[in-house]
Amino acid sequence: MVMIKKASKVTPWEVEGKVDYDKLIKEFGVSRLDDKLLERIKKHAKDLHPMLRRKIFFAHRDLKWLLDEYDKGNKFFLYTGCGPSGPIHLGHLGTWVFTKWLQDVFDVELYFQFTDDEKFLFKDKSYDEIQKWTYDNMLDVIALGFNPKKTFFIVDTKHANLMYPEAIKVAKKITYSTVKAAFGFDDSKNIGEIFYTSMQAVPVFLPCVLKKRKIPCLIPLAIDQDPHFRIARDVYPKLGYDKPAIIHSIFLPPLTGTEGKMSSSNSDKAILTTDSPNQVKKKINKYAFSGGQASIEEHRKKGGNPDVDVSFQYLKFFFEQDDAKLQQIYDDYKSGKMLTSELKNYLIDKINAFLKEHQKKRELAKKQINDFMLKN
Amino acid sequence: MVMIKKASKVTPWEVEGKVDYDKLIKEFGVSRLDDKLLERIKKHAKDLHPMLRRKIFFAHRDLKWLLDEYDKGNKFFLYTGCGPSGPIHLGHLGTWVFTKWLQDVFDVELYFQFTDDEKFLFKDKSYDEIQKWTYDNMLDVIALGFNPKKTFFIVDTKHANLMYPEAIKVAKKITYSTVKAAFGFDDSKNIGEIFYTSMQAVPVFLPCVLKKRKIPCLIPLAIDQDPHFRIARDVYPKLGYDKPAIIHSIFLPPLTGTEGKMSSSNSDKAILTTDSPNQVKKKINKYAFSGGQASIEEHRKKGGNPDVDVSFQYLKFFFEQDDAKLQQIYDDYKSGKMLTSELKNYLIDKINAFLKEHQKKRELAKKQINDFMLKN
Repeated sequence: MVMIKKASKVTPWEVEGKVDYDKLIKEFGVSRLDDKLLERIKKHAKDLHPMLRRKIFFAHRDLKWLLDEYDKGNKFFLYTGCGPSGPIHLGHLGTWVFTKWLQDVFDVELYFQFTDDEKFLFKDKSYDEIQKWTYDNMLDVIALGFNPKKTFFIVDTKHANLMYPEAIKVAKKITYSTVKAAFGFDDSKNIGEIFYTSMQAVPVFLPCVLKKRKIPCLIPLAIDQDPHFRIARDVYPKLGYDKPAIIHSIFLPPLTGTEGKMSSSNSDKAILTTDSPNQVKKKINKYAFSGGQASIEEHRKKGGNPDVDVSFQYLKFFFEQDDAKLQQIYDDYKSGKMLTSELKNYLIDKINAFLKEHQKKRELAKKQINDFMLKN
Repeated sequence: MVMIKKASKVTPWEVEGKVDYDKLIKEFGVSRLDDKLLERIKKHAKDLHPMLRRKIFFAHRDLKWLLDEYDKGNKFFLYTGCGPSGPIHLGHLGTWVFTKWLQDVFDVELYFQFTDDEKFLFKDKSYDEIQKWTYDNMLDVIALGFNPKKTFFIVDTKHANLMYPEAIKVAKKITYSTVKAAFGFDDSKNIGEIFYTSMQAVPVFLPCVLKKRKIPCLIPLAIDQDPHFRIARDVYPKLGYDKPAIIHSIFLPPLTGTEGKMSSSNSDKAILTTDSPNQVKKKINKYAFSGGQASIEEHRKKGGNPDVDVSFQYLKFFFEQDDAKLQQIYDDYKSGKMLTSELKNYLIDKINAFLKEHQKKRELAKKQINDFMLKN
């Protein structure tokens, strides 16, 4: 198989080409999540989350400091978010499911930011459309089972009275030169896009403002979001706050291959949380990039390549929690014992079982939104 | 007298050199306020305000349209504001006193914006210091006697829930290139400064948002603030609103001469609304640039120059309402009949009479702030 190596690009708004995570670790200046740190997390949980065991979360900033603080009795809070510009797909869920695990294991609060301003400013969509997606996306987040007593939704435009006064304190310490370099902006960017990163910086210390004391912050995120906090890191101490700890994940690949990340811009090529069992079946069968051979005969003889097979990647990311079972599928697919159709069917069943439950909880979530909104 | 001609600079944050208002009219693309328009305003008032008669307000945008709408029964609202970064001085009051006259004559609502975000972002002052000045400056505005039933204070950070969602709609349609050209920014500007103009654009249509209908807007301002609206003018129709009408004033010169504008950055060289009678006397006598001659003998012989004399300018701007009296002072000073000390004493008495009343009302204003705040 010939792999054409394209230059990759990773910013909060674009992930293109085959992502070289080793290179990103160097470029972004983050650290690899090593076994020593994983052991420390394991002390607090019955077992490590599969996304940690499988290095889906693979890098970090200042996690040692955060765990030191926790062990001293200084609890952190979690901060993650969602840019509401379309339907939620499986690619979004990984970070949030892992965040929920962290919330449960460490028994901590979560501030969840809906960056409706960002999506309005960066996308060719109307304000009303973005508001519609904000509501819609909240349902998916709630459906994942976060603790409503310890989870606080921030909607940038709805919580502007809290957010904007803090954002300008951040903005005052960031020049246009800095965002230009970090995000690759040029002068044709609108002035809201340029300002926006200061809004994403705020939840790192908003709980400190509200509670009038320093509280450590841990941000689980996909690594494309890191540049926001790389910019803001130097600002926090100047405002009297600690830099946040961050734990970074790789991207769930799009159905069509292992380059870039799953996106809902093309809903045919992503599995949405609202897809019917039949839609899931059709999308996986039609689009999920296969590591199998051209014919059954050839596959039986030569075997498939699970490392590029998207269905296998989805099982590894999310849908097969059992390591032994995953290893068996890997071996069987590689040896040719398991066919692509069998692998796809296995995944389809797993996804549909998950979505059946998720869609039920998503309906119930419609009555819970108010319970989750941060009191303004 | 040798006048050294320096290049002038007029932006919302800098007014330097001798301002050439004819050149500004061309550069900014505004129109001169002609007699025909003044006649139309006069129809609604017993008499034209001295600042109109004396061409202190000298230029406009779309005023004809605004008066046409008014005559059709479509009332406008007024929008002006204050950047709270220091004490209020006499230079601030001109626009506001004129705005009050417009409110009374046309019986219209006024939205008064305190741009605390702007001043925090552009000045080397703390957030708390700016908040202190916001409160302080409100007292001066209230003391001028605005109708609390028809006057609504907007504080950018306190009304961010209303302002920020609208500001991003403006921001989305303004590129960095545009603000760079209009304000002369470079890439070392902070990202809040770059975003800020979209906050100043909002009150032009905020009442339309609140009342869910189009309402014409008239902005009285000193001409240095025009670039904000020059940028935003093209944006308003794209958001479904009318462009505002604007009426522009020249600047009250600083005590020390007729270049630039009065500023409170150096409180020795500006008359503050909180100055005691003695401070006023000292400042006028010590700093007010004189058009008189070097000795009494020479003054009696050659006469003074009221056109560059700052004390005379202050009488013309603000403190001598009576045109005949002003003309007499002009003639007497020019002929040498009136000495500089006499002119200064006349002005000192006028200012102190005004400030005595103003300071009383300023005290009473402390209990009225809530009545003026726009309900959020």
